[in-house]
Amino acid sequence: MMSRLVLQVRPGSVAIHRWCLPSNRPSKLPLVLFSRSFSQQRSKVPASQVPKLWAQAQAVCFDVDCTITKQDALDDLANFLGKGQQVQDLTNAAMNGDMDLAEALQKRLDIMEPTVDKLTAYVQSNPAAPRLVPGIQSLIQELQARNVDVFLISGGFRELILPVADLLKIPRDHIYANRFVYMSDDARLDGTGTTESVSQLIRVTGFDPSQVTSREGGKPEAIRQIRSKKPLQTVVMIGDGITDLEAAEETGGADLFIGYGGVVARPRVQENADWWITDYQEILDALPRFKVAMVGSGAFASAVLQMISQNARDKAIFQDIVDVYVYEEDYHGAKLTSAINQQHENPKYLPGVHFGDNVVANPDLESTVQDADLIIFCAPHQFMHSLCKQIQLIGVKPTAKAISLTKGIHISPEQGPQLMSSMIHRMLNIECSVLMGANLAGEIGPNGLCEATIGSRVREQGHVFQELFDTDYFHVSVIPDIEGAEMAGALKNVVALAAGFADGCDLGQNAKAVVLRQGLSEMRQFAKAMYPNTVRDETFFESCGVADLIATCYGGRNHRVAQEFAKQRGRTSFSQLETDLLNGQKLQGVLTSEEVQSVLSSKGWQNQYPLFSTVNAIVRGRLEPKDISRFRELPGLSLESGGEEPSLLEKTIGF
Amino acid sequence: MMSRLVLQVRPGSVAIHRWCLPSNRPSKLPLVLFSRSFSQQRSKVPASQVPKLWAQAQAVCFDVDCTITKQDALDDLANFLGKGQQVQDLTNAAMNGDMDLAEALQKRLDIMEPTVDKLTAYVQSNPAAPRLVPGIQSLIQELQARNVDVFLISGGFRELILPVADLLKIPRDHIYANRFVYMSDDARLDGTGTTESVSQLIRVTGFDPSQVTSREGGKPEAIRQIRSKKPLQTVVMIGDGITDLEAAEETGGADLFIGYGGVVARPRVQENADWWITDYQEILDALPRFKVAMVGSGAFASAVLQMISQNARDKAIFQDIVDVYVYEEDYHGAKLTSAINQQHENPKYLPGVHFGDNVVANPDLESTVQDADLIIFCAPHQFMHSLCKQIQLIGVKPTAKAISLTKGIHISPEQGPQLMSSMIHRMLNIECSVLMGANLAGEIGPNGLCEATIGSRVREQGHVFQELFDTDYFHVSVIPDIEGAEMAGALKNVVALAAGFADGCDLGQNAKAVVLRQGLSEMRQFAKAMYPNTVRDETFFESCGVADLIATCYGGRNHRVAQEFAKQRGRTSFSQLETDLLNGQKLQGVLTSEEVQSVLSSKGWQNQYPLFSTVNAIVRGRLEPKDISRFRELPGLSLESGGEEPSLLEKTIGF
Repeated sequence: MMSRLVLQVRPGSVAIHRWCLPSNRPSKLPLVLFSRSFSQQRSKVPASQVPKLWAQAQAVCFDVDCTITKQDALDDLANFLGKGQQVQDLTNAAMNGDMDLAEALQKRLDIMEPTVDKLTAYVQSNPAAPRLVPGIQSLIQELQARNVDVFLISGGFRELILPVADLLKIPRDHIYANRFVYMSDDARLDGTGTTESVSQLIRVTGFDPSQVTSREGGKPEAIRQIRSKKPLQTVVMIGDGITDLEAAEETGGADLFIGYGGVVARPRVQENADWWITDYQEILDALPRFKVAMVGSGAFASAVLQMISQNARDKAIFQDIVDVYVYEEDYHGAKLTSAINQQHENPKYLPGVHFGDNVVANPDLESTVQDADLIIFCAPHQFMHSLCKQIQLIGVKPTAKAISLTKGIHISPEQGPQLMSSMIHRMLNIECSVLMGANLAGEIGPNGLCEATIGSRVREQGHVFQELFDTDYFHVSVIPDIEGAEMAGALKNVVALAAGFADGCDLGQNAKAVVLRQGLSEMRQFAKAMYPNTVRDETFFESCGVADLIATCYGGRNHRVAQEFAKQRGRTSFSQLETDLLNGQKLQGVLTSEEVQSVLSSKGWQNQYPLFSTVNAIVRGRLEPKDISRFRELPGLSLESGGEEPSLLEKTIGF
Repeated sequence: MMSRLVLQVRPGSVAIHRWCLPSNRPSKLPLVLFSRSFSQQRSKVPASQVPKLWAQAQAVCFDVDCTITKQDALDDLANFLGKGQQVQDLTNAAMNGDMDLAEALQKRLDIMEPTVDKLTAYVQSNPAAPRLVPGIQSLIQELQARNVDVFLISGGFRELILPVADLLKIPRDHIYANRFVYMSDDARLDGTGTTESVSQLIRVTGFDPSQVTSREGGKPEAIRQIRSKKPLQTVVMIGDGITDLEAAEETGGADLFIGYGGVVARPRVQENADWWITDYQEILDALPRFKVAMVGSGAFASAVLQMISQNARDKAIFQDIVDVYVYEEDYHGAKLTSAINQQHENPKYLPGVHFGDNVVANPDLESTVQDADLIIFCAPHQFMHSLCKQIQLIGVKPTAKAISLTKGIHISPEQGPQLMSSMIHRMLNIECSVLMGANLAGEIGPNGLCEATIGSRVREQGHVFQELFDTDYFHVSVIPDIEGAEMAGALKNVVALAAGFADGCDLGQNAKAVVLRQGLSEMRQFAKAMYPNTVRDETFFESCGVADLIATCYGGRNHRVAQEFAKQRGRTSFSQLETDLLNGQKLQGVLTSEEVQSVLSSKGWQNQYPLFSTVNAIVRGRLEPKDISRFRELPGLSLESGGEEPSLLEKTIGF
């Protein structure tokens, strides 16, 4: 007699027993049978606590059959195999708690005995999408957008669940379900002359008893396993059956049980559920929504409000209204905030660019930020410190998260760079991400193509901000290198001055390419010198690196002013050109150049940064704009005086 | 009594003996004394072989005192210390071979006893430059330019030699010389109440006997050590003394001895030298000069001839005349070669850009390349294969080195990319480097600022080509990544088409920055996919990467034609636009796009390269130029037909 063949379809299989079931009897199953606990009334979560627990869920575990999908997949498979009625009876018995779980499972498999061929045909002819219950896809998307971990815990079979999990973007290691055990068919193998393929010969004969879901009490055990991998304060179980209810009844199981009766309503489940629903919209509406606030209202702030207001309106993760702190000024005899709230655009700094009517301009900083969950900083960098000081006095929610869009850093020889993100983090005691990239304000909009990079130490936080900014015309990626992104965003303005000088002197495309390449190289070198442990080369290939540099050097205001400065051979001061050309906007390259140079001087690094140093000498009037083409000769050019001369920074106070 | 203090000035000291000399007697020196061999006539190198050996030298070792510098440094130090005459007598005795070397050395030190203070004062008051003999600096520069290793082997002292070595750019580990041993002065240390500093108390008392140069036969031993670190076929010794002559008399020593009598002419040395000189110009003139030939005469070839002709004229490493193969055509009724040779410019392809009159245009390929040492390939890429075939029949010098300036590669799904450098290497059986970078031909010149990257597998070979191309307006760096440099040079033309489409549709600077960033990313990804072991990220930060991309996307011909194509909404074909706009020059982006796409299709990689794939769909007329802004939607756009349609490559034969 031939020995039996056990096929394992599970990749990377762990402790599956090499243990065989005869194809017709469920004997010798090494099952531990638990006594039933759900015949008594369970002690429910107090009603007042239910919405709070739901709002703070860190993981939500879903049953699959009749909770995520409209049918029980095994029943459905039985129908497909023409054995529907027999199996239906058994399933009902199991779900009502009238039969031992493992016994019911094995009995159903004994009735069906599907071959691999038939299983394949069933899966192929039953795509996942039409099988989903209404609203489940939005609910899971919204949970994932809030970085809630979503798990599937099912007494069904993995092979039948995978297409659903893939569609819902649930990772494979978030699925707890049973696995078929297959064997080739003895009787047929013993015969001769058959033409059947192997997949016709191999059939399901049982299930892997090492999967927790094959056992009584398997669902709470699955939740205990989930908790053992990652500490989770609040875990919610959602399902339609008695075994789902069980998951909230044991120590280490779920903290809240939501019963779903949209497909099958089982009285015992309804009676014992902490929250009974028949439509997922009900719990979707109860999910927390982040309140978004912005500090700043210049051209760039007004441009990004297009994306933010759209996403706040469209995505359930955010509250609709976006509050914007606007420094109050007169605008044609009225107040600027009123003009903004009437016209739904910033007529002073970015006229003609409309954002949604869910944006509310507010001249009061306190009421703008105090209840916000997400605070976007987008003010000119010279105002950021005093704004943070005011907000420090007001106080923000301890759970609030910030993101800085402000390009510009303070650098001093003593303390090194003071990144905006670090300053916000330090002063407000909340995490702060950054958004940087090639984003000329005037070109951002539904007809444009634009991208940006979010730097965030906490991946999940970066992801929430990605939800807030990303649209089909504004593509946002997330990287962990905050320092590299923010340094690049500031330093590129120094390179833009160099590019402006080159263009103002008509040096041509080759020379401009040299300036940009050398500039990118010095940006990278300086950022790595300041943050040797965190700054990565890869960051400079992102939008916040090379792309921002290119856009700024071909169309930014630092470039424009520097070009004009060069055309006038340095005869008009930067502060005068700023007034003439920038309509009240501030120039950052000159300030950054001064600050970077103070570090280079104090470290004796001037010759290692010949482009930065040459730009600074031109800004200070020690070299002419056309000398930008001679930056390589720097060691021979005497750029530094004895230090007596006042720095341009001092000369341009109030700039 | 205090124990004696031995100070070691050598960093990273190896096996210096902790062995002390009394300050007044040279006893117990553990020297091995060799019997003299140079009283007999040595067997000299046959006169006919001398220039040949010199021309093929791989290392040249120089004595220092009276060979590189005008004085004997120890005598000079003695004068400085007021003990000149006593020491002079001893030195003469030693150089003439009348006294044991170690003995003479110790005796001189005993006379001088310099303190650290006085040594420092001597070195500071005797800068290296005025002490050099005429012509030595040029000679050493020229040797280094040819990648000949230059060593100093001196019986003098390291402390006195280092300033000279630094000036001549000779690395520290190429110096073999003696080291002082210092001790603090007992008598004074035993006294009390003295106010002298430590540097006044510590004085030279002897020398380190573990240095080979302190011993008889030390110079040949030094050469044996040099050979043990790197196999060297031909080593030359140059010096004025008997010990220098010795270096060529022993097995493993120098292969050729050149006696230098420009400072002191010692009869025994002159008599035994293979070559006796009193002026370094003589051996400088006898150094080999590379014959330079160029294949190609388009705009870019004409532009680089500016640098090549200048360097060939100015640097002794190259022969003056640069031969250029020019495909003969009519030019205003005369021959193009005649026009070039009369006007010293290419009036057809780059009018107005003059190169030197040492450039000779030659319509005959054979006489151009057959004797060349350095062959520069700068022909359009579609002609390169047939040119190589012709040159294969002619044959080149087996020692010749090639460099390719041609951007453009052949890529096929079966064989992958066929780099120009690989093709040349394979067909001609010589090493081939590449020169790539941001080099718009029309802007290269003495008033421009430009840079390029040489990719070379052999560092020394890259360095020779660097000497040929590098000028103060054309800055050349060398990297080992040929494949990355050459792939970038070809692939950037595909991105330039995308940039041209974006500009032709007025998509703005943000969008263009997106296109360039994505393009750079796909270039890098594709190059690494093709050459996973050799292509480096860093290459894409060089001129051949990001800078070339920027210059090409803002001013190159692929960009210009693509922009016009977009303005006309694809109604005029690329080949027509090429004729209209490019004055006979060829467009490479379209061909490269077709070839890259054939690889992407065959590997199923289209969606991983959305920008490349969108460019190709536009080129093939399946998308419109404005669709470049939708490249991210690529997986949803059906770009590939069943494969029936003829490819644009086939449709543009003869392009």
